[in-house]
Amino acid sequence: LTPELALVATSVQAWKQNVERAEKRFFPLDDEQLGKAVAPGKNRLIYLWGHLVGVHDGMLPLLALGPRRFPELEAIFVTASDRAVEELPGAAQLKSMWDEVHAALLTGWRDWTAADWAAPHTAVSAEDFAANPLRNRLAILLSRTSHMSYHLGQAQLAPR
Amino acid sequence: LTPELALVATSVQAWKQNVERAEKRFFPLDDEQLGKAVAPGKNRLIYLWGHLVGVHDGMLPLLALGPRRFPELEAIFVTASDRAVEELPGAAQLKSMWDEVHAALLTGWRDWTAADWAAPHTAVSAEDFAANPLRNRLAILLSRTSHMSYHLGQAQLAPR
Repeated sequence: LTPELALVATSVQAWKQNVERAEKRFFPLDDEQLGKAVAPGKNRLIYLWGHLVGVHDGMLPLLALGPRRFPELEAIFVTASDRAVEELPGAAQLKSMWDEVHAALLTGWRDWTAADWAAPHTAVSAEDFAANPLRNRLAILLSRTSHMSYHLGQAQLAPR
Repeated sequence: LTPELALVATSVQAWKQNVERAEKRFFPLDDEQLGKAVAPGKNRLIYLWGHLVGVHDGMLPLLALGPRRFPELEAIFVTASDRAVEELPGAAQLKSMWDEVHAALLTGWRDWTAADWAAPHTAVSAEDFAANPLRNRLAILLSRTSHMSYHLGQAQLAPR
């Protein structure tokens, strides 16, 4: 294992660890439990979970791995705040979308080298990337890992 | 910039972005504001902030950058839960400790190559590292970045 491949594998491992934490937190909950807010007046668990599915789905095009699988999630869980949309997907639907998105990401990254991770993501122009080579695919992975952990910290506060 | 150095710089950048978010959240608060809990009955902001200083201080020995600067924080903010210890450091003291710990970390990493980051941290034996080379220094950086973001998500919920 070269240092550069060790760094890549370590970054993907950190992502997977947070994905597994999210699965432990959200997968066992039924629709009623998912309706609980993390604190009085704050986001509900169902919203946080759907928000993570929607944001992670958006990583597919950002990392040049194909189109979003579930573009409808953007309006429900990313653009809109919680309680702005009446009909949300249920637990079973979210789990199925979650599994599909995360499988697609892991499959997409399977053979990526350090150079692949250091390449520009699709939302940065060639000019901007030349000025700031840290606007790369790894930056997307790390910022989405932090983002997931941020909301997991909130989800941990919800009453059991 | 080689791919491997871009990956290193991207990982340190993700750390710094979260450190800056923490500073924006905690630095403006006085002792009274820091006494607020993130949600009814949950950790207070002062505890979360001290917890982050203590955990980040513990990164120094883990990354072979010298001893903890403030070993007393471990008992107050890591081993003990919130409200178990009566006398906590105040805002000014925490800020000064925060600054010292983060400056020491950034100085320590300044010239680290990919091989330095892929080296074992100090809490893993040579044998265990041989079996799992992902127990490296980057894994510490990424797990502490996630940990910080987890608690920042909670801190964001506190009443203003």
